[in-house]
Amino acid sequence: MTDISRPVSRPPSAPSTPLRGLLNGEPSVVTAGVGLLADALRAQAAQVTEVDWRPPMPGTESDLARVMSDPRRQAANEKAVSRLMSAGAELVDVRPAHECLGIEKGTFFHAGPPMDWEQAPGPMRGALIGAMIYEGLAETPGQAESALASGDGITLDPCHHHKTVGPMAGVVSPSMWMFELRDPVHGGTAYCSLNEGLGKVLRYGAYGPEVIDRLHWMSRVLGPLLQEAVRAHGPLDVRAIIAQMLQMGDEGHNRNRAGSLMALRDLLPSLITVDAPSSDVADVVRFAGANEHFFLNLGMPASKLATDAARDVPGSTMVVAMARNGTDFGIQTSGTGDQWFTGPADTPVGLFLGNYGPEDANPDIGDSAIMETAGIGGFAMAAAPAIVRFVGGDVPLALRTTRTMYEITLGEHPAFQIPILEFRGTPTGIDVTRVVRTGILPQINTGMAGAVAGTGQVGAGLVNPPEQCFPAALAALAKAVPDRR
Amino acid sequence: MTDISRPVSRPPSAPSTPLRGLLNGEPSVVTAGVGLLADALRAQAAQVTEVDWRPPMPGTESDLARVMSDPRRQAANEKAVSRLMSAGAELVDVRPAHECLGIEKGTFFHAGPPMDWEQAPGPMRGALIGAMIYEGLAETPGQAESALASGDGITLDPCHHHKTVGPMAGVVSPSMWMFELRDPVHGGTAYCSLNEGLGKVLRYGAYGPEVIDRLHWMSRVLGPLLQEAVRAHGPLDVRAIIAQMLQMGDEGHNRNRAGSLMALRDLLPSLITVDAPSSDVADVVRFAGANEHFFLNLGMPASKLATDAARDVPGSTMVVAMARNGTDFGIQTSGTGDQWFTGPADTPVGLFLGNYGPEDANPDIGDSAIMETAGIGGFAMAAAPAIVRFVGGDVPLALRTTRTMYEITLGEHPAFQIPILEFRGTPTGIDVTRVVRTGILPQINTGMAGAVAGTGQVGAGLVNPPEQCFPAALAALAKAVPDRR
Repeated sequence: MTDISRPVSRPPSAPSTPLRGLLNGEPSVVTAGVGLLADALRAQAAQVTEVDWRPPMPGTESDLARVMSDPRRQAANEKAVSRLMSAGAELVDVRPAHECLGIEKGTFFHAGPPMDWEQAPGPMRGALIGAMIYEGLAETPGQAESALASGDGITLDPCHHHKTVGPMAGVVSPSMWMFELRDPVHGGTAYCSLNEGLGKVLRYGAYGPEVIDRLHWMSRVLGPLLQEAVRAHGPLDVRAIIAQMLQMGDEGHNRNRAGSLMALRDLLPSLITVDAPSSDVADVVRFAGANEHFFLNLGMPASKLATDAARDVPGSTMVVAMARNGTDFGIQTSGTGDQWFTGPADTPVGLFLGNYGPEDANPDIGDSAIMETAGIGGFAMAAAPAIVRFVGGDVPLALRTTRTMYEITLGEHPAFQIPILEFRGTPTGIDVTRVVRTGILPQINTGMAGAVAGTGQVGAGLVNPPEQCFPAALAALAKAVPDRR
Repeated sequence: MTDISRPVSRPPSAPSTPLRGLLNGEPSVVTAGVGLLADALRAQAAQVTEVDWRPPMPGTESDLARVMSDPRRQAANEKAVSRLMSAGAELVDVRPAHECLGIEKGTFFHAGPPMDWEQAPGPMRGALIGAMIYEGLAETPGQAESALASGDGITLDPCHHHKTVGPMAGVVSPSMWMFELRDPVHGGTAYCSLNEGLGKVLRYGAYGPEVIDRLHWMSRVLGPLLQEAVRAHGPLDVRAIIAQMLQMGDEGHNRNRAGSLMALRDLLPSLITVDAPSSDVADVVRFAGANEHFFLNLGMPASKLATDAARDVPGSTMVVAMARNGTDFGIQTSGTGDQWFTGPADTPVGLFLGNYGPEDANPDIGDSAIMETAGIGGFAMAAAPAIVRFVGGDVPLALRTTRTMYEITLGEHPAFQIPILEFRGTPTGIDVTRVVRTGILPQINTGMAGAVAGTGQVGAGLVNPPEQCFPAALAALAKAVPDRR
């Protein structure tokens, strides 16, 4: 007797009708629509998988037909998902942003697709204000805000355009220290800032004195000590830690407990022998040890390496970026280069800290949806049932979410396995055509920032991309299909 | 739609017929025996729980009747399981055994029920030989063996008789350093040696020079540094770590990965600032960090504290110890004091290291079944599906094992919850009457020692106690029931 019902697996080249696309050689029956047929079959002891069939997203029929008949598509998607899944990720250095990214004073990278100050929502504005003060470009929030609003000497640019990812507001300024990761398989490089911990932190839009003081300590003590430790340790295999954490109740986006402990454990012997006062070492260990999300800022660039390795495969309909600036949600696909397909960011539904409620939450923000783009986070929720105590929902939802994501993905990750699903690989490589055909949107676990600049984190929850990103990407993919002769 | 079928819960005062004992107020049907009724009910969309009903163990009818009708039984069991589940566990010190346990040279504590040298199996002999050499009582294995066989100046005594538990051979000698745990709720104290890591280690019966060298390093460096760190840190809440690790893929017996990382994380800041060479500190961190079972030797005395708190409740049929010396498996119950009920230890079935196979394995050995006695380990397998890659079996087995253990236990642990079972508490407090009535034996996850002294670990697997322990305990419980007037 098994309590685990295995989802029906599909070949990567599923035919275009969703119903047939779900069938394979097993003696199972897939039923769609009202449940009478399913009930009748079950009464005959047949194995039944009910799917919530819906017609393709409206207005997508001709683009879908054109893209589905693109003879390059199948091989292109196989190549893209295979590059994504085979990418390695090693932490190789920790360096200041001005050194490794060449970013200059007055330039700020931010999460999500491109935006200007006018479009920036509260938490993004709060983070930019804090970064201005931290960089010594303003003394008060008022001064910072005026300078940012005037735009003089200010440049805003997406992290994603600079091999970088940033959680929540994702603001990167020259003095911040960055994790530098290398993909030894495909040769890519990716960066992410160091995690500040929870609560009142810059990435959630807080900019009070404690936030700025912490950032200065991170530049003065944390960054240099981690640099010495990483250089003494040699490359740290971040991909291997992700594989392990999925067997330890983490999904890598909102639960990074085991991952953070393992990264700390691996770096410790080198950290302890660093040439620094033992009180500084103890402070670093205490800071990193108390921060359950320390690893998020390693998992994100690891996922960026994987998705970047899958970019620019002509004809591939695979998503290679999902990112939000707190106003817009944008996606990019492998077959359409650096083009963003955007829609208004939705507001997560979930659980709130303290006295905060839904009215306090900003719409979805951050580059952290790179985790789901790479097949973990919300896609691996079944590996982390305890997360429902943090983002809301119940345990069956966690299992159902992962199972549903197999419907819209191209592969099952060979290294990222979910024990409770009998070690099945995580659903990996979102296919725009599958999203459009099924109407199933990617599921993202995320933190929630306060809508008002300066607030900080107000909760955590579940959110989807706005539907319109996918028909827009499909249309661009359709345009890129070469005419037949 | 839920994929988690909740086992039917029973009130602590279940009636004596197993079938009725499984029913409660929910609109569910429990079926026993052949599956036709279950199939018919399922076709009518009724919620069905199939149980593998068996008659009580043979020859137990009159003892069972006497014990079940003991008017003290229900309240006694409620008291026992409540004391077990409410016990706290804090690591308060690390000290040499001669200091905290008063053990003198020539005396060795060992795992399991009492035994003499003649009865000691290969791995127990190997561990005793190694301990003789480590204590300087012999220079060669041959000398050690002769001295042990002659018995002159040698005393063997169970760990359990000295508030102590020992994994595998469980040999404790005066120079070994011990974790000292205190139960702040009921006031108990319990001890366990420090974990040596895996492979060729004393507790698995290895006694080569590398084993003895490691033990000396542990006494010279590891113990004293941990002592300083623990004293600087103050009491470390081991019970809280167990609660967390069950949400991180550990079951606490054969998987202690997250627990080991959390214990290390908590002690680190104090460890780093210890007055010792930084190379010693780095060695300790590297040793503990590389040892996935470091926490086992904290979880075991925590479980010993809980089960000791439940001892000596007159009329209680709850098991308070399960322990094996590699020849005999013994249990103790709350209502029968220090009496052991023994049978020949079975040999675990599982997975083997390297080229070892079933013929290399010694029968079940160690005090580590205290984990299952306290409601974790095999009883919490559903929390640790990845463990099937280590002990054998498959993921449904891990889920089924925990669900089955609810049939023979008195309570559900309020602090030890299993996320995938929708945060249900682990099945806690084995009831001798339920074991005898259902024929369901406790499920233990365990390591396997080589049968030949000096070998070390050969694998890990699953094992049950010998059935006869339970009717024997029941008979003693029946004798202790006061005559009615």
